[in-house]
Amino acid sequence: MVITNSIFVLFLILIPFASSENYKYEIKFLDVPLDHFSYVNNTTFKLRYLINNTFAKDDTGPILFYTGNEGDIELFAQNTGFMWEIAPQLNAIVVFAEHRFYGKTQPFGNHSYDSPQHLGYLTSEQALADFAFLLNSLNPVPKNSREKPRPVIAFGGSYGGMLSAWMRMKYPHLVEGSISSSAPIRQFKGLTPCNVFNKILTSVFKTAYHPTCIENIKRVWDLLKKLAGNGDGLKTLNEKFRFCKNLTKVEDLKEFTDYLTDVYGNLAMANYPYPANFLAPLPAYPVREFCGRLDRINFTDIELLNHFESALSIYSNYTGKIKCLDIQSAYDSNMGDKGWEFQACTEMVMPMCADESDMFPVEKWDFKKYSDDCFKKFSVRPNEDTAIINYGGRSLDAASNIVFSNGLLDPWSGGGVLRNSNPKIKIVLITEGAHHMDLRAAHEKDPGSVIGARKVHIKSIQEWISNYHKRSIFK
Amino acid sequence: MVITNSIFVLFLILIPFASSENYKYEIKFLDVPLDHFSYVNNTTFKLRYLINNTFAKDDTGPILFYTGNEGDIELFAQNTGFMWEIAPQLNAIVVFAEHRFYGKTQPFGNHSYDSPQHLGYLTSEQALADFAFLLNSLNPVPKNSREKPRPVIAFGGSYGGMLSAWMRMKYPHLVEGSISSSAPIRQFKGLTPCNVFNKILTSVFKTAYHPTCIENIKRVWDLLKKLAGNGDGLKTLNEKFRFCKNLTKVEDLKEFTDYLTDVYGNLAMANYPYPANFLAPLPAYPVREFCGRLDRINFTDIELLNHFESALSIYSNYTGKIKCLDIQSAYDSNMGDKGWEFQACTEMVMPMCADESDMFPVEKWDFKKYSDDCFKKFSVRPNEDTAIINYGGRSLDAASNIVFSNGLLDPWSGGGVLRNSNPKIKIVLITEGAHHMDLRAAHEKDPGSVIGARKVHIKSIQEWISNYHKRSIFK
Repeated sequence: MVITNSIFVLFLILIPFASSENYKYEIKFLDVPLDHFSYVNNTTFKLRYLINNTFAKDDTGPILFYTGNEGDIELFAQNTGFMWEIAPQLNAIVVFAEHRFYGKTQPFGNHSYDSPQHLGYLTSEQALADFAFLLNSLNPVPKNSREKPRPVIAFGGSYGGMLSAWMRMKYPHLVEGSISSSAPIRQFKGLTPCNVFNKILTSVFKTAYHPTCIENIKRVWDLLKKLAGNGDGLKTLNEKFRFCKNLTKVEDLKEFTDYLTDVYGNLAMANYPYPANFLAPLPAYPVREFCGRLDRINFTDIELLNHFESALSIYSNYTGKIKCLDIQSAYDSNMGDKGWEFQACTEMVMPMCADESDMFPVEKWDFKKYSDDCFKKFSVRPNEDTAIINYGGRSLDAASNIVFSNGLLDPWSGGGVLRNSNPKIKIVLITEGAHHMDLRAAHEKDPGSVIGARKVHIKSIQEWISNYHKRSIFK
Repeated sequence: MVITNSIFVLFLILIPFASSENYKYEIKFLDVPLDHFSYVNNTTFKLRYLINNTFAKDDTGPILFYTGNEGDIELFAQNTGFMWEIAPQLNAIVVFAEHRFYGKTQPFGNHSYDSPQHLGYLTSEQALADFAFLLNSLNPVPKNSREKPRPVIAFGGSYGGMLSAWMRMKYPHLVEGSISSSAPIRQFKGLTPCNVFNKILTSVFKTAYHPTCIENIKRVWDLLKKLAGNGDGLKTLNEKFRFCKNLTKVEDLKEFTDYLTDVYGNLAMANYPYPANFLAPLPAYPVREFCGRLDRINFTDIELLNHFESALSIYSNYTGKIKCLDIQSAYDSNMGDKGWEFQACTEMVMPMCADESDMFPVEKWDFKKYSDDCFKKFSVRPNEDTAIINYGGRSLDAASNIVFSNGLLDPWSGGGVLRNSNPKIKIVLITEGAHHMDLRAAHEKDPGSVIGARKVHIKSIQEWISNYHKRSIFK
């Protein structure tokens, strides 16, 4: 998450380890062009998709189509219960399409990440074109020109939600409408101030239990820095946090602070009202739990360290079974973090910064440094304008049939579509919602605003399908 | 033109030799990415564009933006008088952007056409992205976020009209509206029957003067074939038509019949009510002139040959100054016919066929042969689905702010948008119009339907601009 030290953002930390497979599907592959927009080579690769057509009773029902994001598509299939729950009543085919370069959809096999000559084909435009190609194959125009293909409804959360919205914007002839959940399509240069993400995050931690939580979080940054500066302090840190690999010098601290930055974002995004088995198992309302352990004003340094370690264990060791703290990544290994880093280093440039009122160290948005870091890592340089040129975002006046839903407790909501005057675009604000909670399966602890959001989704989908069937073929 | 023997289509034969330069502009170049959709290499090239900002009195007027098609952009600038005529009253900047791989916009200089490794970057999607990139550079979002960029109106005729429509469909955040003249966006598989082009063409020739015209045209095909089959006949043909390079065997005939096929299409497209200095100078209503010389029923073979040669000279030698008949190409050398052939061999696959009632030899649409010919010529194979997947065309329900104008005497109108039930799309049928005549400068001989079409254009543009200025910035 781009806040302070780490320059990359991973959205979809909310995917649990799929401990049990609830939903059934066939796994299929389709040969798709590597490059949809040029003819320099005619290579194809195998795009994976999951399909279940047991709910479709005839040829008129819709296809519910998940536009896969930066991870293994099976994780999304198992964690987008909403689609599975509405499929029977809609007489729908359910499809989850994997995003190129993630999961098992590796255009160059094990060499996909070798160099920009391979990885350079990892872009959102190519991914959308993959989905369009797949839809054309699954849902062709019938030979009898008086019949219609099935209507298609796109779904996605987070980056997948951006893709589902863009899919409707760019391929409205293939997709009738789109449910775009927690999709920060305005988290680009000039569309959203760079500090909004951290403002929301700080506010979530400030209001979860007691405002002192963020004061203590701020103190921790300084305390860690002070301790890491000398041998005794390092020893204290190593003893206290039981890292899998000890810190041995002050420079080692960065990996830990990057980890903490990610953890804060993850806790807020996953701030659900029920326990969930995420990257790590988490209790209900994990931010409240976390801040509940940092609720005093006058901690001594060592008290602060003890309480902080206890708070952190909410995320890192809620089961109590973890032997040591692995700070290499705060993300599920099934998430394609390197792929997303590459995308963030090319077109998905989302400026982030923190100021003095935030719970993070002050940091300006430094595009030059960001670009240099990208070049070091991938031999590519990002372009801040590309996403805006390709997708826009300021005005949605020409778009239609999209529901943008955002949880106001989700730091990504700041870059989402929260206002709009186009009646063909629906805005759903989920006051009690974290990151794309509305796409998850129904749960008895769901707050009213999430239940309400799902009702808007269903009503919109029914409307889109009904209008589709009413419409003449050529129009 | 894909009708019988020649497999490729060139639209814009209507461009005159720019004998005098009426309109003034600066010629500029912008570095744009060679590949907008991948990061395999970071090459850029110089895109040429023409700009005139002498009509813009302040920062609020529109940009009138011509989306260049398959030829030298200066030809389009000199032959799209309509844009120049409305610029002063609209307080507008005028821009003509050159399409990559045409005119002076050669991404690899003299080597641009060497191989698919270079030419493979010639696609409509990349061209649209060039235009988007250029617009973002010419018309950036002002730093003061309360101000707006200028509204942009796209214009284009023929393939350029397809591009201007697609520009609005794919980049509505950059282009407020589009005037799309004679744009056959439905001339793709399954959208329009393959015989419609030749049906209209036949009808134009049938009704221009006397129905016997097409009977004589049909007879000519057989007569040429018969004569080319023996030495005496070849001698007769060579004497009669004075080819720059004599026919020496029956196989040589194909070049001539391909030429004739193109000439028929060109005559119909350029069937204007006033003399115009086109590829070759032409009289007013050239189809009528042509058919006026083929108005009898009972020609003997030799009479038919004489009359046909006389009719053909309307196109090939109207000035009487041409010494010999050059049948290598019926097109202006400033038109990028090889580039268009490549596009027709990749994504711009427009099925064409002729049946017994047409004035052409019967020919089925044979995609396999078409594909094989393409592979021989360019080492690429066409895909009939690509354009439909990328751009759709059956339903325009999600589009807005486009005027589709078509001349009903233009054979390309059959693949145009002639009906639609979306109130945000305007359809203009120009009963007396040939190919994108409405984009030309006003002329005293303009029929009422062309004058009416221009009024619709102006009213639409004013509406789009007015709505743009009324709208809040984020919506």
